Amino acid sequence: MSNQDIVALMDDMGKRARAAAMQLARASSAEKQAALMAMAATIRARESEILVENQKDLAAADEHGLSGAMRDRLALDHDRVEAIAAGLETVAAFKDPVGDLMEEWDRPNGLKISRVRVPLGVIGVIYESRPNVTADAGALCLKAGNAAILRGGSESVFSARAIHACLVEGLTAAGLPGDAIQLVPTRDRAAVGAMLQDMAEYIDILIPRGGKGLNARVMAEARVPVIGHLEGICHVYVDKSADLEKAVAIAVNAKMRRTGICGTAETLLVDRAAAATHLRPILDALAGAGCALRGDADVCAADDRVTLAVEEDWSTEYLDAILSVALVDGVDGAVEHIGKYSSGHTEAIIAEDVAVVERFTRLVDSAILMVNASTQYADGGEFGMGAEIGIATGKLHARGPVGAEQLTSYKYIVHGSGQTRP
Amino acid sequence: MSNQDIVALMDDMGKRARAAAMQLARASSAEKQAALMAMAATIRARESEILVENQKDLAAADEHGLSGAMRDRLALDHDRVEAIAAGLETVAAFKDPVGDLMEEWDRPNGLKISRVRVPLGVIGVIYESRPNVTADAGALCLKAGNAAILRGGSESVFSARAIHACLVEGLTAAGLPGDAIQLVPTRDRAAVGAMLQDMAEYIDILIPRGGKGLNARVMAEARVPVIGHLEGICHVYVDKSADLEKAVAIAVNAKMRRTGICGTAETLLVDRAAAATHLRPILDALAGAGCALRGDADVCAADDRVTLAVEEDWSTEYLDAILSVALVDGVDGAVEHIGKYSSGHTEAIIAEDVAVVERFTRLVDSAILMVNASTQYADGGEFGMGAEIGIATGKLHARGPVGAEQLTSYKYIVHGSGQTRP
Repeated sequence: MSNQDIVALMDDMGKRARAAAMQLARASSAEKQAALMAMAATIRARESEILVENQKDLAAADEHGLSGAMRDRLALDHDRVEAIAAGLETVAAFKDPVGDLMEEWDRPNGLKISRVRVPLGVIGVIYESRPNVTADAGALCLKAGNAAILRGGSESVFSARAIHACLVEGLTAAGLPGDAIQLVPTRDRAAVGAMLQDMAEYIDILIPRGGKGLNARVMAEARVPVIGHLEGICHVYVDKSADLEKAVAIAVNAKMRRTGICGTAETLLVDRAAAATHLRPILDALAGAGCALRGDADVCAADDRVTLAVEEDWSTEYLDAILSVALVDGVDGAVEHIGKYSSGHTEAIIAEDVAVVERFTRLVDSAILMVNASTQYADGGEFGMGAEIGIATGKLHARGPVGAEQLTSYKYIVHGSGQTRP
Repeated sequence: MSNQDIVALMDDMGKRARAAAMQLARASSAEKQAALMAMAATIRARESEILVENQKDLAAADEHGLSGAMRDRLALDHDRVEAIAAGLETVAAFKDPVGDLMEEWDRPNGLKISRVRVPLGVIGVIYESRPNVTADAGALCLKAGNAAILRGGSESVFSARAIHACLVEGLTAAGLPGDAIQLVPTRDRAAVGAMLQDMAEYIDILIPRGGKGLNARVMAEARVPVIGHLEGICHVYVDKSADLEKAVAIAVNAKMRRTGICGTAETLLVDRAAAATHLRPILDALAGAGCALRGDADVCAADDRVTLAVEEDWSTEYLDAILSVALVDGVDGAVEHIGKYSSGHTEAIIAEDVAVVERFTRLVDSAILMVNASTQYADGGEFGMGAEIGIATGKLHARGPVGAEQLTSYKYIVHGSGQTRP
């Protein structure tokens, strides 16, 4: 396609999304729920077609020599298709945030003010290879009454199209506009440029979902507001007041349960005052679980399984069975280290001293602070939000897990009885 | 100053703001309150110096032939200086939003999740000639624990500097960093460009406060998130179920109480079914109050005081004693007209029929919907927010009156007892 054709295509998608958003804002909870249930049923009914399309993506992946991890992210099978359908049902069952009364109060002049949730409008989602994001993102946008413009990775184009067709069928089965969830039909990169730069009139907010490179590009280039998801450089701090058993279990779980997710711990900070008692048992457990250890000079001196960390280690998201370990001077040392190196995602403190816990949770400015719990709980589902589109690391509009509620705005309704302002 | 000097200057201001924001986030409510009270006292003590500096701005205004309205906005006298001090005291007395527990819930696995308010960080405010904005904006940012970088209009540079000096004195008197509220010291327009384009590392959010031109420029050019304040094209809809007395009083108040504010009504919509009963008395009252009337063909035919409106009238913010008037087909006609022409600020409905009111408040997507009350109540003070920095017309992060609470973000604190994720 020529650049001009893409501009015209995206402009048309934008207009259709706006029109669909107007209709969606008026859709009832029951209509949205029916659409989501119909989508799930269609996904299940078309499993074999989806798998055939997925094979085309996999064949192309093999041709382009995609790495094992990337190929795995792309691959669908019966269980993964079922998980997509089940995810749609979870979102269907969840509470509709639109129309929620957030707060209300009375004024001395008799005005009654209330604040109620409304949809945001049109949400653009730019993502990479996982085919399930097509369904997850579309469903969450719909739940919150928003129209969605989805741009998936070019590696998963056949799978995404097959899944998207099921979503549209679910929408129309429930009497909602098929344009409520649109998938950019071209692989051309100029379409992403259009979403970032030229569609401010149509797109209210952009959500990048993918690796560091994608997020950085969207946040740097977008002329539309972005809910960004940076990497997770998550810390676990073990205070001298920590219960050793909890510290060992949480450190191992935070790093090793799944090493490839953004809520995995990348750095362990141990209170210098607990080095003699806590460090060794924690490192024993980590090493025993197969974790490679990189530490500062003090940690290396204390334990010869640890190799010397370089400055870059403290700001590296390994997403692998590797952990950097430093000794710090109590909670203030931990706060300082985290302030310097954290990406603002999730940090944990293991401590029994309530004053230390209070200081940590007050002074550390990350989206999620875990007290005596694993960083791997940083997840919308674990928070009870039903589903999430990611963990926002910015501080604007939404922070932490982004579920349907975070994809809404609000308006004020003021009830009077003829009041005029003096 | 050379462009290079300005870049260096703004870079330095950004660094200092970041450092101040770190300290402010940890400041107690009492410290912030003490600073605001000290600022008010200093403003009062230095009234004569402030007025001398204001005279310099006024002399320059006369030299440049500034219009009467602009000159009036710029001018200070005893009462206006007193109002600035009183405004600081109002913000001081108001509840500190930082640390507020927004919600909390328990999970089946025993995790206790809470969401608490935290400061946003560094807020850039770009405003025009009113000198009081220096104090209002600085105070609100401080109240919410944010550092502020203020860029006032070049017409009010002497007044703004004099007021800013009082703010810094108040900060340091309370032991808070003077850099918490910085005023861009140069009139050079390149400083605004730097705030819009080059300071994403330092400025978390930009708030333009001023006319349509300023807002449009900031929203178009900023590479930092913006809380925008577009014009207010506010509507009053009079339904056939309206109480005539309320309709007359509210229409006159909404238009004529103050014609120059963003919450003033610009268009009156009258239910065609009420044209015979309601239109004439309302237009009589408006004309009697000195309002010029422009109407559609039907309104012109019904009342010869009305001149024919052109298409542009329906999207014009007159900010003057002029009102456009149209007949519409009931509440759905009103919703359609408002959807087409409104700027999303504030609309009012005058109606006694609860089903009609419900339909209007559900279907109209503006920041504030008034039911049987004047649009001129669209104001943070009238909402009980203490003070405001403007009325946001966007849907992201903050919508409607922007007070201290709207200048915050939040974080999650999760209390566990050793939980690890299965």
